Amino acid sequence: MRMYDIIHKKRLGKELSEEEINFFVEGFTKGDIPDYQASAFAMAIMFQGMTDRETSALTMAMAESGDTVDLSMLGKLSVDKHSTGGVGDKTTLIVAPIVASLGAKVAKMSGRGLGHTGGTVDKLEAINGYKTTLSPNDFIKQVEKIGIAVIGQSGNLAPCDKKLYALRDVTATVESIPLITSSIMSKKIAAGSHSIVLDIKTGSGAFMKTSEEAEELGRKMVDIGKACGRNIAALITDMDTPLGYNIGNALEVKEAISVLRGEYKGDLRIVCEALAANMVELSLGYDSLTSEKMVKDSLDSGKAYEKFKEWIAEQGGDISQIEDISLLPTATYVHDIVSPCDGYIDSMNAESIGLTSVLLGAGRKNKDDVIDMSAGIVLCKKNGDRVKKGDVLAYLHTSCMENISSAEAMFLSSVKFSDAPTSLPPLIYKIIK
Amino acid sequence: MRMYDIIHKKRLGKELSEEEINFFVEGFTKGDIPDYQASAFAMAIMFQGMTDRETSALTMAMAESGDTVDLSMLGKLSVDKHSTGGVGDKTTLIVAPIVASLGAKVAKMSGRGLGHTGGTVDKLEAINGYKTTLSPNDFIKQVEKIGIAVIGQSGNLAPCDKKLYALRDVTATVESIPLITSSIMSKKIAAGSHSIVLDIKTGSGAFMKTSEEAEELGRKMVDIGKACGRNIAALITDMDTPLGYNIGNALEVKEAISVLRGEYKGDLRIVCEALAANMVELSLGYDSLTSEKMVKDSLDSGKAYEKFKEWIAEQGGDISQIEDISLLPTATYVHDIVSPCDGYIDSMNAESIGLTSVLLGAGRKNKDDVIDMSAGIVLCKKNGDRVKKGDVLAYLHTSCMENISSAEAMFLSSVKFSDAPTSLPPLIYKIIK
Repeated sequence: MRMYDIIHKKRLGKELSEEEINFFVEGFTKGDIPDYQASAFAMAIMFQGMTDRETSALTMAMAESGDTVDLSMLGKLSVDKHSTGGVGDKTTLIVAPIVASLGAKVAKMSGRGLGHTGGTVDKLEAINGYKTTLSPNDFIKQVEKIGIAVIGQSGNLAPCDKKLYALRDVTATVESIPLITSSIMSKKIAAGSHSIVLDIKTGSGAFMKTSEEAEELGRKMVDIGKACGRNIAALITDMDTPLGYNIGNALEVKEAISVLRGEYKGDLRIVCEALAANMVELSLGYDSLTSEKMVKDSLDSGKAYEKFKEWIAEQGGDISQIEDISLLPTATYVHDIVSPCDGYIDSMNAESIGLTSVLLGAGRKNKDDVIDMSAGIVLCKKNGDRVKKGDVLAYLHTSCMENISSAEAMFLSSVKFSDAPTSLPPLIYKIIK
Repeated sequence: MRMYDIIHKKRLGKELSEEEINFFVEGFTKGDIPDYQASAFAMAIMFQGMTDRETSALTMAMAESGDTVDLSMLGKLSVDKHSTGGVGDKTTLIVAPIVASLGAKVAKMSGRGLGHTGGTVDKLEAINGYKTTLSPNDFIKQVEKIGIAVIGQSGNLAPCDKKLYALRDVTATVESIPLITSSIMSKKIAAGSHSIVLDIKTGSGAFMKTSEEAEELGRKMVDIGKACGRNIAALITDMDTPLGYNIGNALEVKEAISVLRGEYKGDLRIVCEALAANMVELSLGYDSLTSEKMVKDSLDSGKAYEKFKEWIAEQGGDISQIEDISLLPTATYVHDIVSPCDGYIDSMNAESIGLTSVLLGAGRKNKDDVIDMSAGIVLCKKNGDRVKKGDVLAYLHTSCMENISSAEAMFLSSVKFSDAPTSLPPLIYKIIK
């Protein structure tokens, strides 16, 4: 078998066999197949696509290209959640303790933020002492004991995907449904959970700009997940505007705590309830109405909040910062942005609001940048809200005023006003099972 | 400027600017742009193509990526010929002395054979003493003195093309009209001749299998050549069956000599006359009828043959082998292949006949293989000829009988018989100016 022939076959739009896909994954992981063949192959896939059989084979082969986490001791209780990334997306901090409080087992590896989107591991590091690294043994033991552990991606998980993604990132071959699907699903399969709930974001702050694209991706991922033997569902959720009101690491932890304490009732809670209910349904086997009710009860009764504190404490975090959120990192400067006009908020471009928070220090422009945990944005108005000239639209939090005027300009350019209230997009477009 | 953006732009099917193309050529030649970006770029071009403006810019940038040959001292007299490669294609050995005998100046760099096609430089090395390398100064001096010099490709000519072609060859990105065009034309432009005649082969033994594809390539190359300021014409000629009767290095030199001596009247002479007449027309400015007559006269009067001997002698070759062709390399074994049936030759697959000659030792499977100069095939019958069972179809010449039975089987599988004579394709499909 020769990689040349595999590239050529795909270029001509023919279906590759499992053997051919395995040949690529093994050869590329080992370094026998050079980057220049892999990038030409990826570009051919961009144009010719892949059938479901090819995508499943690629997913499984990449999942098996390195370490895999064995969660079989948890039976069917293990459940994972994956978000395609967005601005203000702190749902993991909320849904993980909810479902763990109900008996599901969350053994989760999360990512870090890059570009305009944040990462769960960064957010957790806003809490003093929280350990984002556990040995495989301690990781499993904690999940067995309290039902939840969240660490950074560790070990040699799906190394083929890691290598291929790095290459796609520099060769303009990212935006391919089968490649995105196999990239995400290979890591989820390798991470071992029996059930998986996907949160596919759509809108200005998401990778998938339209709900049609998001739905196409969601459907493909669900099909591939099932073909790989997993319980799986995908929610298409809005990311045209940031989720919740807080953007930035410590600010998002604070907002998550307010949801867990039952104090917060808006968009963020609604999305978290839907994600958690689907996780409960898949992992614990309740019907959807019962699952929804259990999730609400967990929040309203404080069970989810107690599970959150148990988790953070178990992983070394400082609980006093949870019980008194004023002890979490706080910015030196808070700058208010006021409305330049009367009217209604028509839209807020989530991507540029995400980039505003990066400018304030809340994110990374490059992989090795250091994050200011206290930095970020607190929105006071969101889509559909009425504003008067001079009303505060948002507070910018930062420890360094250097970029404050460009941050303000970027924030204001991301907001569109209208004379009358316009209809809001749905929070949850679709649930694909 | 970032290579990522250039790949992305091409992937989306947009036209690249001259600056973007120059950025790629300079960066890739220097090694600043890695192979994996260049191969993804080439694959995007495979799918999205290039406009004439892009192809011209790529051609000029690649031509200028290394050394260029200055033939300005020859005025408008310099003329080059390029064949896209075929089986039994010894036309350079014939047309170069014809046009030189009429006053044109041929300063030619030729290639070596690879795969099923032969190369002029290999053929010339069948003559004892022939020097395929000359210093740039000696090369030009010889052309000024006798009107002709043919050497192997030397120096750092179009290094970007060399690098890109090697990469395309292993990433299934060869068959792209703009990439083929710019690859060939960049070398021809760098080689300096004012006029260029292209021989675009079509048929089973050619890279372009159909005359439509060949014509598309020819038209594109003529357009690009003109855009780069050259006099240019392209002939679309048949390569469905080998050209002439002899295939293999010394065997082809012998057949070329027989054309030059005016002894041979078949397909090979017709194609050579057409190529030479177009070279004369472009470089010396005669009309086409006059050019054709001059070419025939040169062959019939022996002027072309005398110029051939002068050229070979000037470049160190042993003239006694020209005057007595039995002194050229001769195979130890000659094996005849007889017809298995009565009928007519319907077709002979030129590619597999070329591969048969490689099996006999006449070509290279890999770049570093050593060629048996005496090996090859002499056809006794060609398309349209009537045969009786037991008639000799061809003689296989070789110095090593090891592969003789597989060579015989391969030869026979390449011949198709019919009960009645079928119409022959034209020798020359079209002349594009």
